[in-house]
Amino acid sequence: MSISSFHPPERTLMGPGPSDVNPRILEAMSRPTIGHLDPSFVQMMEEMKELLQYAFKTKNALTMPVSAPGSAGMETCFVNLVSPGDKVIVCQNGVFGGRMKENVERSGATAIMVEDAWGDAVDANKLEEALKANPDASTVAFVHAETSTGAISDAKTLVELAHKYDCLTIVDAVTSLGGSPVLVDEWNIDAIYSGTQKCLSCTPGLSPVSFSEAAQERIANRTHPVQSWFMDLNLVMGYWGSGAKRAYHHTAPINSLYALHESLVILQEEGLENSWKRHMDNHLALRAGVEAMGLGFIVNEADRLPQLNAVTIPDGVDDAAVRGKLLQDYNLEIGAGLGALGGKVWRIGLMGYASNKTNVLFCLGALDAVLTSMGGKIESGVAVRAATDYYSK
Amino acid sequence: MSISSFHPPERTLMGPGPSDVNPRILEAMSRPTIGHLDPSFVQMMEEMKELLQYAFKTKNALTMPVSAPGSAGMETCFVNLVSPGDKVIVCQNGVFGGRMKENVERSGATAIMVEDAWGDAVDANKLEEALKANPDASTVAFVHAETSTGAISDAKTLVELAHKYDCLTIVDAVTSLGGSPVLVDEWNIDAIYSGTQKCLSCTPGLSPVSFSEAAQERIANRTHPVQSWFMDLNLVMGYWGSGAKRAYHHTAPINSLYALHESLVILQEEGLENSWKRHMDNHLALRAGVEAMGLGFIVNEADRLPQLNAVTIPDGVDDAAVRGKLLQDYNLEIGAGLGALGGKVWRIGLMGYASNKTNVLFCLGALDAVLTSMGGKIESGVAVRAATDYYSK
Repeated sequence: MSISSFHPPERTLMGPGPSDVNPRILEAMSRPTIGHLDPSFVQMMEEMKELLQYAFKTKNALTMPVSAPGSAGMETCFVNLVSPGDKVIVCQNGVFGGRMKENVERSGATAIMVEDAWGDAVDANKLEEALKANPDASTVAFVHAETSTGAISDAKTLVELAHKYDCLTIVDAVTSLGGSPVLVDEWNIDAIYSGTQKCLSCTPGLSPVSFSEAAQERIANRTHPVQSWFMDLNLVMGYWGSGAKRAYHHTAPINSLYALHESLVILQEEGLENSWKRHMDNHLALRAGVEAMGLGFIVNEADRLPQLNAVTIPDGVDDAAVRGKLLQDYNLEIGAGLGALGGKVWRIGLMGYASNKTNVLFCLGALDAVLTSMGGKIESGVAVRAATDYYSK
Repeated sequence: MSISSFHPPERTLMGPGPSDVNPRILEAMSRPTIGHLDPSFVQMMEEMKELLQYAFKTKNALTMPVSAPGSAGMETCFVNLVSPGDKVIVCQNGVFGGRMKENVERSGATAIMVEDAWGDAVDANKLEEALKANPDASTVAFVHAETSTGAISDAKTLVELAHKYDCLTIVDAVTSLGGSPVLVDEWNIDAIYSGTQKCLSCTPGLSPVSFSEAAQERIANRTHPVQSWFMDLNLVMGYWGSGAKRAYHHTAPINSLYALHESLVILQEEGLENSWKRHMDNHLALRAGVEAMGLGFIVNEADRLPQLNAVTIPDGVDDAAVRGKLLQDYNLEIGAGLGALGGKVWRIGLMGYASNKTNVLFCLGALDAVLTSMGGKIESGVAVRAATDYYSK
């Protein structure tokens, strides 16, 4: 056996994440490793919390990155806030609501499902019906930005409803954070988790989370221990808390944290509101090009996430062949449909660093060429021109 | 608020981990991110499994890195192999045996503790007594290399005993893998986990694991679902397994995996046996210097881990002051004692890339200087000279 160093190809990442990583972040990640209790590192951790509070628009003291990917951030929220025997209302309108149900059930609780069609936003009326029918529910969970469909839901209204019926809320903001408004304090969200590899355009592997005082209180007053030792926030806070003395819990992923710190510094430099605007602008340009090619979106205009575009695959077009050709001929990755949407949509991400004019024009040009090469009847150059027309307005 | 990029100081890491990272690994980590389903990435995953099989000396098909630090690797072993109502015998001779107990109990099982003094190896006779007294036990768990004390236990004998009484085994090899013999197949270990930041001298954040066929069978035949969705190997294997089609489970920490791949390529280049020998050589040189200064070890010579040296702090010496001065004046990190050993020992790591002559002489010279500056009566230059004498033999 003799295996050599791995040198990845250079791709343009326009799928559902990971998205293109800013080279500044890759460089930051390769800085010298230091100890997880080094005074310099502890200082960096304080800055990290402040930067995450900025990104989440919150003053929550319990705001930090979980040392594992977004799925572990989701599980951290559930195992800390949910106890065996609890009843949790889960709104599902895509893949990730289903994963929430798994988390509820594995925590020994009962999931009451509120179902909406994949591609629709969560229906607040259905949630209220479920809240009325289940006065003993303790928690409402929903996905703010469904990565599997590209639909955004009205988090503010859903949280208000949950609170009206005395439930705490768990919100999935994996794909929204940094790309669309996520106003944790203004919307009174109790527990929220995100990922690093979407609109923060950082490498994958960490999950920023934030918890309100009400959530912290519930966690501190649990009678049944958190079933995960690794994710138990009562223990994790001995390390990430703001006490004078940091206690070792687990070894922090030092270099991944350098990367996240740098990505948040970049977000702060651009300004959160400017980042939201940029994501919307590039989405509208992509949309102009997509529609000029005669393709559509599965999500209604009002509920469309700018950073994740679920574009319908025309009848008779071979999904995998198109994605394969884009990868092979253009080093361009776009995403396949997940679950029920497999083979029906492409998911084109415009996330973080990848949300820029270059990527929009490149993707439209490449998709136009590939579809044409497979017999599509697309007027020459129309997609790219529609996008540049949008930018010129 | 305005926070700048974080530029860490350059330290020499000779604590209990993270240890010095080979610059080749830092460079690998900063290579361009690609998708977690990219054909090139899938190819890299296959190599990764092969390289980990080499490091673990196993043919186990279920050998892969968990996407989170060693503590999550530990939890992955427990939540997959242990079910509610089970009885698990846990041998404890330091901090990490205590963490195993937490994992057993949070999995709804009962932990039968076999206690040894901190700094001693696990006593096989005590384990056999516990096995006789608990014929309904299903699993034996122990730490091969206790990072909190620097003691190594006889894994082969302990596993043989467990099997004699029809128990599967869970083994913590966080600090041993790559630095001391870990022979998974020859010793018939059923489940083993390690970390990347010790003798693999990689960045922290991942946990290599391996499972025997007997362990895989138990996992596949569980009647109670694994309580963690993120760590459920039945699901994780849909992504890491060798089937033709990789199913998305969670987003893999792409760049951290580049780093681990590179660290394993480096291990393969050196050769596992050469790495074990290098760790022993540098340990013996450090030991010569430590003893020349009049300091001792808390672990008996026969049970001493070469990569983690728990050196007793002389009476009247201020632990924190010495470590603080080493860090401030020499950018050198050594570890404090954990738990019951706090204030009683320093933990000097010679792990992976950090196990070299430069570090040994540097550490001895700096420790000599700091102890002397605080009033220690150490004959001038004796520590460094003892180490170079060892190397010259």
